[in-house]
Amino acid sequence: MNEAEFLAAIRNLATDPAARGFADDAAVLGDLVLTHDMIVEGVHFLPDDPPEDVAWKLVAVNLSDLAAKGAEPVGCLLGYALGPAEWNAGFVAGLKQVLQTYPMPLLGGDTVRANGPRSFGLTAIGRAGHAPSRGGARAGDALYVTGTIGRAGIGLRLLSAGETGPEVEAYRRPQPRLVEGRALAPIVHAMMDVSDGLLIDARRMADASGLAVTIDLADVPVSGDPLEAVTAGDDYELLFAAPADVSLPMPATRIGRFAQGQGLSLVQAGSPVPLPASLGWMHT
Amino acid sequence: MNEAEFLAAIRNLATDPAARGFADDAAVLGDLVLTHDMIVEGVHFLPDDPPEDVAWKLVAVNLSDLAAKGAEPVGCLLGYALGPAEWNAGFVAGLKQVLQTYPMPLLGGDTVRANGPRSFGLTAIGRAGHAPSRGGARAGDALYVTGTIGRAGIGLRLLSAGETGPEVEAYRRPQPRLVEGRALAPIVHAMMDVSDGLLIDARRMADASGLAVTIDLADVPVSGDPLEAVTAGDDYELLFAAPADVSLPMPATRIGRFAQGQGLSLVQAGSPVPLPASLGWMHT
Repeated sequence: MNEAEFLAAIRNLATDPAARGFADDAAVLGDLVLTHDMIVEGVHFLPDDPPEDVAWKLVAVNLSDLAAKGAEPVGCLLGYALGPAEWNAGFVAGLKQVLQTYPMPLLGGDTVRANGPRSFGLTAIGRAGHAPSRGGARAGDALYVTGTIGRAGIGLRLLSAGETGPEVEAYRRPQPRLVEGRALAPIVHAMMDVSDGLLIDARRMADASGLAVTIDLADVPVSGDPLEAVTAGDDYELLFAAPADVSLPMPATRIGRFAQGQGLSLVQAGSPVPLPASLGWMHT
Repeated sequence: MNEAEFLAAIRNLATDPAARGFADDAAVLGDLVLTHDMIVEGVHFLPDDPPEDVAWKLVAVNLSDLAAKGAEPVGCLLGYALGPAEWNAGFVAGLKQVLQTYPMPLLGGDTVRANGPRSFGLTAIGRAGHAPSRGGARAGDALYVTGTIGRAGIGLRLLSAGETGPEVEAYRRPQPRLVEGRALAPIVHAMMDVSDGLLIDARRMADASGLAVTIDLADVPVSGDPLEAVTAGDDYELLFAAPADVSLPMPATRIGRFAQGQGLSLVQAGSPVPLPASLGWMHT
């Protein structure tokens, strides 16, 4: 049973409607929005990453899932594997910063000892009047994105090359779009956050909605090379479907359109462009 | 910052009343009860433990926390680190069994790849009309326990010696006392589950209540050696404080009494007995 088979088997167990078929950013139980993300040393962060930033990112990626469902943070539970003394102190400092910034109360959790690479988990709980799914886009809707895409990807490349720059902060300290998510939730047909890459996430929204989507590369607000930007992940901007003539409560950019059909197409100022080999980070 | 200092720092962050000062089995947010436990390969389970049992135990220990707060399971989120193909398949089978037995819907979670020892996390969410804390015992209350203490400890010793026996099942497949917890919640003054050992957990209840507690070893329903039984963990029975003359909705055994003062005392048919060097499993 490989990863894809495991995910299929797990999806089969998740028959409760609140699970949304494991196809959404979060579970939705009445007015509660629930999400759980894990990060693993050597996979999602490096042993020499500053522990303050690891704590920030662990919380921020979960808050981004709440943002994508238009939810207000209610609280979180932390699963922590103890590390070296100095690392623990840095983690607590970063945790305090991120929990006070948004803010989100820490309600509970568990602390364990571990040998070898450590793992952390966070469960974030939010409350939303209406939590838009990924799958609600309608033919004729426009596709929008908040902010700028690609800064976190540049930050990761800088770090991998042993360099530094202002984009490193974008990679290490993502800013979940909680205010925007709550403002958008009542007017969008579908919403999700851009965690694995703009192209792959847009295709997931189209697939979940049973539609085709076309993105115009010339319209995407990017940092750096456009094709690199739209296939890099970790931006944690919001991607949403809404009527093309909707009045938005905050700035966002129209980058594409949904239509009958299926799949993702890319154009550049209207002319077809071949899809890159990788659309982003694939889990399987 | 060692484990004790880390826990103190985390407790300082958890100022929301719903966190119950990190001193209870679970967080209590309105009528919701929330708990998160992690298990780590090589620490909480062994690489050659059957994956079906690892899944069972991961879910059961979290359900036991819900039981201790008189909560009905509402759903759970799973953090899973992929393992070998056969192991994944076994884990899913065990997960299906335990989720259908109690039952509790699987609502979401995360799957990661990990190098080295793997970690799993589970967040369980329940609903309770009234969730008794650990700290509500009153002077004069009796201390009660459900079921029999010590079977899981025998099971662990058998496994450690490479032997087998019926108690191995008690260790690997704990049966959370959900029905009993819901029946008891309205009439108890304090309740918790016995996860780390009867003596240490009873002392925690006394400490949280600002009282002294005396346990009569002759009254504790045990399997095997009484002193081994009351210091072994993993029984997942319910320990509760209630008036000595209360009418219980189900069978439980009176094993002690709370009084003004502090600390734990042990007697044997009324005569003082010295406390064992270790009262159970200590987290710090």
